[in-house]
Amino acid sequence: MGQPVKYLLPESDIPTHWVNLLPDLPGTPSPPLHPGTKEPLGPEDLAPIFPMGLIQQEVSTEPEIEIPEEVREAYKLWRPTPLYRALRLERVLDTPAHVYYKYEGVSPAGSHKPNTAVAQAYYNKEEGVRKLSTETGAGQWGSALALACRLFDLECEVFMVGISYDQKPYRRAMIETWGATVHRSPSDLTDAGRAQAEHETGSLGIAISEAVETAAKAEDTNYSLGSVLNHVLLHQTVIGQEAIEQMGMAGESPDVIIGCTGGGSNFAGLTFPFMRGTLRGENQIRYVAAEPAACPTLTRGTYAYDFGDTAGLTPLMPMYTLGHDFVPPPVHAGGLRYHGDAPMLCGLVKAGRIEARAYKQNETFDAAVKFARAEGIIPAPEPAHAIRAVIDEVERGDAKVILFGLCGHGNFDLAAYDAYLSGTLEDPEFSEADMDAALARLPEAPAIA
Amino acid sequence: MGQPVKYLLPESDIPTHWVNLLPDLPGTPSPPLHPGTKEPLGPEDLAPIFPMGLIQQEVSTEPEIEIPEEVREAYKLWRPTPLYRALRLERVLDTPAHVYYKYEGVSPAGSHKPNTAVAQAYYNKEEGVRKLSTETGAGQWGSALALACRLFDLECEVFMVGISYDQKPYRRAMIETWGATVHRSPSDLTDAGRAQAEHETGSLGIAISEAVETAAKAEDTNYSLGSVLNHVLLHQTVIGQEAIEQMGMAGESPDVIIGCTGGGSNFAGLTFPFMRGTLRGENQIRYVAAEPAACPTLTRGTYAYDFGDTAGLTPLMPMYTLGHDFVPPPVHAGGLRYHGDAPMLCGLVKAGRIEARAYKQNETFDAAVKFARAEGIIPAPEPAHAIRAVIDEVERGDAKVILFGLCGHGNFDLAAYDAYLSGTLEDPEFSEADMDAALARLPEAPAIA
Repeated sequence: MGQPVKYLLPESDIPTHWVNLLPDLPGTPSPPLHPGTKEPLGPEDLAPIFPMGLIQQEVSTEPEIEIPEEVREAYKLWRPTPLYRALRLERVLDTPAHVYYKYEGVSPAGSHKPNTAVAQAYYNKEEGVRKLSTETGAGQWGSALALACRLFDLECEVFMVGISYDQKPYRRAMIETWGATVHRSPSDLTDAGRAQAEHETGSLGIAISEAVETAAKAEDTNYSLGSVLNHVLLHQTVIGQEAIEQMGMAGESPDVIIGCTGGGSNFAGLTFPFMRGTLRGENQIRYVAAEPAACPTLTRGTYAYDFGDTAGLTPLMPMYTLGHDFVPPPVHAGGLRYHGDAPMLCGLVKAGRIEARAYKQNETFDAAVKFARAEGIIPAPEPAHAIRAVIDEVERGDAKVILFGLCGHGNFDLAAYDAYLSGTLEDPEFSEADMDAALARLPEAPAIA
Repeated sequence: MGQPVKYLLPESDIPTHWVNLLPDLPGTPSPPLHPGTKEPLGPEDLAPIFPMGLIQQEVSTEPEIEIPEEVREAYKLWRPTPLYRALRLERVLDTPAHVYYKYEGVSPAGSHKPNTAVAQAYYNKEEGVRKLSTETGAGQWGSALALACRLFDLECEVFMVGISYDQKPYRRAMIETWGATVHRSPSDLTDAGRAQAEHETGSLGIAISEAVETAAKAEDTNYSLGSVLNHVLLHQTVIGQEAIEQMGMAGESPDVIIGCTGGGSNFAGLTFPFMRGTLRGENQIRYVAAEPAACPTLTRGTYAYDFGDTAGLTPLMPMYTLGHDFVPPPVHAGGLRYHGDAPMLCGLVKAGRIEARAYKQNETFDAAVKFARAEGIIPAPEPAHAIRAVIDEVERGDAKVILFGLCGHGNFDLAAYDAYLSGTLEDPEFSEADMDAALARLPEAPAIA
């Protein structure tokens, strides 16, 4: 019955280890710095808000880290995820290239985020933590952590950016359905929230501050972050490991792998298991990171130490940055609206191992609609950037086999599709003035080694 | 790594035939009657709005009908769907019973509806039809047909009930993303719409009339229905056939199979392949149909000839009915708000082969939240009725192995969850007065043989 469309793995093929790219990275990675002393950060600095199991993973140089059986059991609710051959898209694009996509939208939360959420919930539970606090913007991370906490019987408290809380009641209802508590941020529950009460619409920066403060003040509560950090990227490598198996089932090897980048966890999760082979000289795969022209961290940012949050409370991290208090225009790809990017990913961009491209909002939705009409699945606005880059690759004609990450579905983003189809979707771009301001905002810190 | 959670089949195990239960039904099925003459309906009466391929299936007495290769190719976009063992739900319910569910929410439209939509689009395309018209309430059927038309390169025109069009813009955007045209019904495009212009909020009955009129008036346009008819139930039997394979993989056989019923296509799709064995004396499975107490067709309806639509334009069908102009209260399980039920299903209820139970809205959401917190997946309000019945079965303690149909996810129903969690969800029930009115509204027609 024709060529296969889906490549499925049995549950027994859920990876047994996470891939840690740290020991294979070119050069010696620069350490994060303490925001006060600007000295390299030690594990003890992180202990008030993270469990030791995750702190160890953050700095581990072991090439592989075993996945606890309880986490693999939780993964079984949706993993292994399918790899698709986009036969119908290939026909629409009239290309001889073979296009594959790894689809993470089959998780209950609809994205790749639960891959790390369940791991983080597990390690916290193991160390006797009773509750996790976190922030969420559009709600993808908050819903993933709410699900994970429910699976590991932890309480969960989510600070949701005020304007999203008002405008996106469905993601909030999802978080509450899984039993977590949602606070509109800024709230009056924290000093940080009370201090910012006049910023009624809130921001991710304020929400982070509220969640961190909640964790730091309570003995039995920890904080949880959904991207950027090494251990988060580590947990996502189940994606790429499965994709390697599935490309093997298809009897093909990708020439180029494409993903969207916000904090970098989806991109790293898909590419790092392949990248290890590339760094070791075992393959010649190219990597393309697709980001919004409205928040072009990798294509136009400065490679420097900067804070992870707006308020400057987090450690300084070595990364491409647009400045920690840059507020990106409200493009619908909320998961890509981050001023920085994962340090591990940024190092690989700096080393020329990853090519970055920026796309404007309307051209990504144009690609997403093309994809939806060919393949059925309606993509989230974030992976729509990857699809745009795939179409670019097809048009360039260099790659015979293209693999990309479809990290989530767009069921909660149909208002954006509505705007696109009715011609009212905006097309914001990062400006020269934004750039000047970004450079001026960089904190004083050592140069990256 | 523990017991399996998911039972997956390869694409090569997508069924090659649909199961037609008609030749195995007890007694001789009563024919539908012409709405004017009240004589048995002939194929020629259906020809203006349906293709001959589907009309033949509507009356076929062949026990199996081959699935065209093109339809199986389209099924590959999401089929075979997974069968899950609800291990975590069993633990929460503290039961020794084994609970399995067949999950149809993995289709791009998020429900079982595309199983028949792609088949209907195929047969229409084969016979040179250029466009399909249909109605949709909450939008599940409209989105499924929009997807199917796109896959088979047909135009698609959807008349969407006015109040849903206004209140559910996301399903509308989904339909438009797949390239179909959506009209708010009543529209000024049809006589039926113009005649009902004063009913601003619209109704499914008016929308059906508009879609049928559109198909009847245009040479190159046919009409498409998402449930009730024999050929629709037939197409859905891919669900149950896969489930038989998957229960075999699990090494178990269900004692009871449970599904929700609105028009009956989801229930029939899951149960008919098993039911054939039951009717032939090969197994002793029990069947439970779960419906809303607000629209209790099978539990409180009258078994009589009635119209399929509000306006009385369709053939008279032999079924349990609450009266064709009964407007059910606006419960969130929009797919179950139908005054009648599929004649094949009703015959099996009448023959004592299917037990029907009715549930109130809040108890179904209570079950759905329990399920979501155990299994991750947030169910649509329709299969929440089946989950409520599963919990009932578990509490009765008779069944060792329970299988139920999880026919769709609840990503578009989170406003309803929000209402439930905040305690504002209503609990309407069908009243004695409703019942008296229903009996008075039955059309004059022969008794069912």
